[in-house]
Amino acid sequence: MLIRLGYDIELEISQQMAVVAVLNIHPSRIADLVEPDEIQISQPVPRDEFFDSFGNKCTRLLAQPGPLRLWSSTLIEDSGEPDAVDWKAPQIPVHKLPHDTLRFLLASRYCEVDRLSTLAWQMFGNTASGWPTVQAICDWVQGHIAFDYNCAHPSKSALDVYTERKGVCRDFQHLAITLCRALHIPARYATGYLGDIGFPPAGPMDFSAWFEVYLGNRWWTFDARNNTPRIGRVLMATGRDAADVAITTSFGTSWLRNFLVVTDEVVAEPLLVRGAA
Amino acid sequence: MLIRLGYDIELEISQQMAVVAVLNIHPSRIADLVEPDEIQISQPVPRDEFFDSFGNKCTRLLAQPGPLRLWSSTLIEDSGEPDAVDWKAPQIPVHKLPHDTLRFLLASRYCEVDRLSTLAWQMFGNTASGWPTVQAICDWVQGHIAFDYNCAHPSKSALDVYTERKGVCRDFQHLAITLCRALHIPARYATGYLGDIGFPPAGPMDFSAWFEVYLGNRWWTFDARNNTPRIGRVLMATGRDAADVAITTSFGTSWLRNFLVVTDEVVAEPLLVRGAA
Amino acid sequence: MLIRLGYDIELEISQQMAVVAVLNIHPSRIADLVEPDEIQISQPVPRDEFFDSFGNKCTRLLAQPGPLRLWSSTLIEDSGEPDAVDWKAPQIPVHKLPHDTLRFLLASRYCEVDRLSTLAWQMFGNTASGWPTVQAICDWVQGHIAFDYNCAHPSKSALDVYTERKGVCRDFQHLAITLCRALHIPARYATGYLGDIGFPPAGPMDFSAWFEVYLGNRWWTFDARNNTPRIGRVLMATGRDAADVAITTSFGTSWLRNFLVVTDEVVAEPLLVRGAA
Amino acid sequence: MLIRLGYDIELEISQQMAVVAVLNIHPSRIADLVEPDEIQISQPVPRDEFFDSFGNKCTRLLAQPGPLRLWSSTLIEDSGEPDAVDWKAPQIPVHKLPHDTLRFLLASRYCEVDRLSTLAWQMFGNTASGWPTVQAICDWVQGHIAFDYNCAHPSKSALDVYTERKGVCRDFQHLAITLCRALHIPARYATGYLGDIGFPPAGPMDFSAWFEVYLGNRWWTFDARNNTPRIGRVLMATGRDAADVAITTSFGTSWLRNFLVVTDEVVAEPLLVRGAA
Repeated sequence: MLIRLGYDIELEISQQMAVVAVLNIHPSRIADLVEPDEIQISQPVPRDEFFDSFGNKCTRLLAQPGPLRLWSSTLIEDSGEPDAVDWKAPQIPVHKLPHDTLRFLLASRYCEVDRLSTLAWQMFGNTASGWPTVQAICDWVQGHIAFDYNCAHPSKSALDVYTERKGVCRDFQHLAITLCRALHIPARYATGYLGDIGFPPAGPMDFSAWFEVYLGNRWWTFDARNNTPRIGRVLMATGRDAADVAITTSFGTSWLRNFLVVTDEVVAEPLLVRGAA
Repeated sequence: MLIRLGYDIELEISQQMAVVAVLNIHPSRIADLVEPDEIQISQPVPRDEFFDSFGNKCTRLLAQPGPLRLWSSTLIEDSGEPDAVDWKAPQIPVHKLPHDTLRFLLASRYCEVDRLSTLAWQMFGNTASGWPTVQAICDWVQGHIAFDYNCAHPSKSALDVYTERKGVCRDFQHLAITLCRALHIPARYATGYLGDIGFPPAGPMDFSAWFEVYLGNRWWTFDARNNTPRIGRVLMATGRDAADVAITTSFGTSWLRNFLVVTDEVVAEPLLVRGAA
Repeated sequence: MLIRLGYDIELEISQQMAVVAVLNIHPSRIADLVEPDEIQISQPVPRDEFFDSFGNKCTRLLAQPGPLRLWSSTLIEDSGEPDAVDWKAPQIPVHKLPHDTLRFLLASRYCEVDRLSTLAWQMFGNTASGWPTVQAICDWVQGHIAFDYNCAHPSKSALDVYTERKGVCRDFQHLAITLCRALHIPARYATGYLGDIGFPPAGPMDFSAWFEVYLGNRWWTFDARNNTPRIGRVLMATGRDAADVAITTSFGTSWLRNFLVVTDEVVAEPLLVRGAA
Repeated sequence: MLIRLGYDIELEISQQMAVVAVLNIHPSRIADLVEPDEIQISQPVPRDEFFDSFGNKCTRLLAQPGPLRLWSSTLIEDSGEPDAVDWKAPQIPVHKLPHDTLRFLLASRYCEVDRLSTLAWQMFGNTASGWPTVQAICDWVQGHIAFDYNCAHPSKSALDVYTERKGVCRDFQHLAITLCRALHIPARYATGYLGDIGFPPAGPMDFSAWFEVYLGNRWWTFDARNNTPRIGRVLMATGRDAADVAITTSFGTSWLRNFLVVTDEVVAEPLLVRGAA
């Protein structure tokens, strides 16, 4: 399956400032690219590309006052398979976990593991370990948190979500991540493209958040908001929580003027035409 | 100057569980060791040593129910110089900072940069950038937060410290770190040994917390609690905040039964005797 | 001076539920009424009028599903004098305060006196007691909190305002009230009409919030948002904080469909005409 | 049944300050007194007795620097009956509740009804209204919150208790009160004496907290910590939450030096002997 990916973001920059963007697909998906994945930048400034400590590709630039437009369009080959499911994937005891998964057991900005630990054990301490626990957490989160765009807040943490019971995509994931970590299952935040493939269109596109847990010998995708295997996720970045993988971080005052995301299955795009382009 | 370092920690372990300890000196200080730096473990269990994503040396073990004692004693050569001071060390603009310092600008569990940013700029936005800003932050924190052992709380964040105005060592540092980051100065949490060298004895020893900021082309030591250059700090670990560098993390219920730390200048210990030992 | 007061509020009621409205002028202003002050109710349901424990006039009704419109128009005689100022009004020591002012020293939902007490003393403990302290608090709040309609949140408390540094009218007052109480000055929340009299028009009208403090032998009006004596305040209700004096409280799910407030000086309305009506 | 009541409290007062004490039994129990109920005060200062807005008897005095001891001993006749239970006591719809119960539906300092409302309806919205709902709330609170003296904190609110899952007596009640109010059942905080009558002795006495709800046509006693009908409660004060009925409130810095409470059934005290004393 081919998926057209793209975005068009416009910021209004108040004064010269650094901007860091996480707007490329994740290195793990580079082999699937059919077209190059390159950020277009409206201002004629140098770009500085690097990988952060989680392995995400980042771009830094020194933005000038005025509008700053970042856009891109690329094409990716996707398996077309839904998120993998394996109820037998076992929970690995902490003393056997790979070293680099251990940091995903700790508390982070939006995931107060320390504060939600007691209730996590009360709620899920008797559930079968591993996949059933993660699924039970997702079921609970999806069943108890209402999606509400009006309740988005940049400082909202898992604890806030748990008590307020309302939130947006990232809030669902933060709560589920926190509960998983409390139960000693490494869990990390993921952000990327997720279209409506196989589902009715759901309004304007946005980047999406989901999360990954480490079971058996690999990371698995879970999504406490949609809570059903989906087709066509294209990962951009992973981190401890949303604080690590903001799409754009402006080191100064800026305003979002325009925001458009595209994630469409390319049903009728003949390869021939692309080849001739 | 020679410094005798050591600790003796006893945990009561309720059931078999993983324990991760950050109880070695930092790799950057290994060349200064006069004696080996090895954790002694009372239980005959295998140990698994590794470096975390910040470069700290960690030890993981599978503790068995009952008492678990961790202790050590080592000797280190120290310059005897107080913490370096350089009022001219310049603040590096975000677009020129080394990539691996950028993560120390972000919000973390105990450092809610997002929530304290506005007030940080109100308070210090007009201070000369770089060293004077960091020093002004330390002065403010030391002047406005009262040290109170009774106000220690494992969930206390910079925001809590800022409003409650009371805390312990780590709380002072969390608040200062958060303010530095808000002002675009990379700041990281540090933990290690700090004795009374050059000061009157201040009661039972404990591990100490301080913080480091990136100015000019290096990390510098600051300490918002003591707020004066000190002699004899021996670094054990750095991280975003205390969540990253807990001395011991037990993945299950445990109790601290005993806790002793030693950090003494070895004034009269003749090298000859050591050599003969 | 004559002031035309009125409002037109429409709620959409999801199911039969009690609604309590605090939509009359305060009993202390009844003698100034030139026209009756009566709530008009679109649904033909009985009303139950009573005074709450603070002496505010409340109306309770059993609303039926569908639209519920509450509206009114009345005319009041006002002194036309700005808020009284008396820098000599002394702070009364707690042991001499009238008994019924003591409850306005305590913590309440949006005024966490317990949590902001230490910093209140740090900030204003050296200011001359009484009026200068209250004025210094208002100056600080007005100078450090930015008005931002987008930052309104029904759960926002004084502590939140203090750290976030943004808020709406009621948030300014909650913070000032909390600081006053911490310094042992009784302070209560006030809500009512406040037009633009003497000022350039400032957009659509809304009900306004201010606060009162007890100094000397009476309550005085302060306003940490506008922070200047104003003409034409008409009090509706006082309480510990906004939790006590919500304009309307629906005991069930409802939506605000329309909201209009009028507070206009009646410049050219000849008394003769009114008399002949 | 006769119950001996008493206390002996010693504060260290740092400087001249007002102290307000709520240390008398509640006016509703005065008719049961066998001996006078009078606060003894170690300092020769005038006392000012009054009733607060909830009807509690309060005593205000101007304490002088140094120790301030407050003590008392009295004897009261008690029915010896356990807390009344009536599963048929109906929940009164909000539009029919007595006016003076409405304030016990609102949010207060330690009872953030606004923030816990959604989850209260999720948890108990399908429980039969009235007594079964209150009992279900108490069962849930008792079953999910662990009693832990080390987790007492003067700023701990219902929201904190709900997430931390640990607390002391007052914390259990604050959470239960908040959930009741969210479900439109008036609930108020109560403090007083509660001995071990009918139970094994449970360590040193303290004043106790419980709560009351309005069902049918009266207030009923519930206790989310003990969660079983008890004998020998002697009410001292009621209010919205602990902020309204602190045993002592010092308007300045003071330290608690001694604290002793007595609540003992007087089994063998012959009236004759008392008469002869």
